[in-house]
Amino acid sequence: MTILEKPLSPAGLEAALRAIGATRYHNLHRFHQRLHAGKCRLGEVQAWALNRYYYQSMIPIKDATVLTRMEDAAMRREWRKRIEDHDGLAEGDGGIERWLQLTDSLGFSRDYVRSTVGILPGTRFAVEAYVHFCGERSLLEAIASSLTELFSPQIISERVSGMLAHYDYVSKQTLAYFSARPVQAKRDSDFALEYVCTHANTIEDQQKVLNALKFKCDVLWVQLDALWSAYVDGALSPGVWNPAEAQAGIGLMQHGQAA
Amino acid sequence: MTILEKPLSPAGLEAALRAIGATRYHNLHRFHQRLHAGKCRLGEVQAWALNRYYYQSMIPIKDATVLTRMEDAAMRREWRKRIEDHDGLAEGDGGIERWLQLTDSLGFSRDYVRSTVGILPGTRFAVEAYVHFCGERSLLEAIASSLTELFSPQIISERVSGMLAHYDYVSKQTLAYFSARPVQAKRDSDFALEYVCTHANTIEDQQKVLNALKFKCDVLWVQLDALWSAYVDGALSPGVWNPAEAQAGIGLMQHGQAA
Repeated sequence: MTILEKPLSPAGLEAALRAIGATRYHNLHRFHQRLHAGKCRLGEVQAWALNRYYYQSMIPIKDATVLTRMEDAAMRREWRKRIEDHDGLAEGDGGIERWLQLTDSLGFSRDYVRSTVGILPGTRFAVEAYVHFCGERSLLEAIASSLTELFSPQIISERVSGMLAHYDYVSKQTLAYFSARPVQAKRDSDFALEYVCTHANTIEDQQKVLNALKFKCDVLWVQLDALWSAYVDGALSPGVWNPAEAQAGIGLMQHGQAA
Repeated sequence: MTILEKPLSPAGLEAALRAIGATRYHNLHRFHQRLHAGKCRLGEVQAWALNRYYYQSMIPIKDATVLTRMEDAAMRREWRKRIEDHDGLAEGDGGIERWLQLTDSLGFSRDYVRSTVGILPGTRFAVEAYVHFCGERSLLEAIASSLTELFSPQIISERVSGMLAHYDYVSKQTLAYFSARPVQAKRDSDFALEYVCTHANTIEDQQKVLNALKFKCDVLWVQLDALWSAYVDGALSPGVWNPAEAQAGIGLMQHGQAA
């Protein structure tokens, strides 16, 4: 655990945040490495997309939770873009819709994905921890916890190029979610980084900011731990989506059924 | 997922609850089986006790959360016994103290255990999910989520006899926590079972009761998943307690230091 002894400069705080990403961001997780190296079986890729849907679907809830903490209209307008990115400006638009296009392409029915009945409990607990964190901690910590976006352009680039190269059932179109994200993430993380480096001046606040980013790295890491345990190691917890049963149609679209 | 088509009788509801325990309670988890069969390395037993401390320490917070939902003094008096069991009637008494005697015996310093800095993020998220559940769901669901106690006498009996038989650093005294629990759990689960079987009469309420117990089974299961992944499979997440570093004294008492 990083323990500060004196306040960091804004540049020093940014460096400390980037150092957390360099050691704790989930691009270092063995599941990510397996996924982009083309080692995942179809059931693992399906399980990843199915579980990650829950994370995607809760991001606007998380961001609305942050909005409730902001007293300044200009700040709320800035933060509102995150909700627009995920929910879209109209039906058929937005990040959640694009994620559903990915789960469509992997054979899941939208009703099944949206029901989230088949996701891992570990996914659910981690994602809920993130939403609760943003409602219960200070606004500064809630904003700081979004800073994993500093590191997302790199993981997205690895993921997209690796998945396109290795899985013939994946295409640029099915990965459309990721095309939009790097520009959005850059805009968002520029804002959040500026905010925390301007507003966290004391040791106590800077420590909170660093811990918030570590917490968020844990939220992402634990989701990949859960996927590895269930779908790589094969220790399925009771009641979750099972690729073997999926062959018999559970959660997947029937032949001839439209997406 | 159990889907009810008509309301169950009280006996039918009890049977459905017991059927959930028979398929989802964590006595079926491979980590429990490894622990009581004597297959765990010392570091795994230590990690189990360290992580489980966080669960124990949050139980009175969870039960106080349930108390805040109860409008009836007689009910609150009944439920308050749970807090008394864990927090004790005086310094040096209670379940949390007895759990700390176990972590003492495994070499941890109490400051380190109480700080919870070394626990797995998966443990933290699961335990927090339980506390949040009891604050956010109905009182009926909060009470139903405690019903894993129906099944705890059996797992405790397996755990204690297995651990005493296989680990020479474990004694009846270090496992004192478990001696008190079966009687307390029986009293608690008798009350909770009577409550839910009396108050859940509609399909909707009975479904909520069943789902609450499944949720709680997930809370326990995910904690063992996290232990397996980190300490049996060796995929330590960044920043958690590491048995290899513990050899160098991190988190453990120094030789000659009193418990």
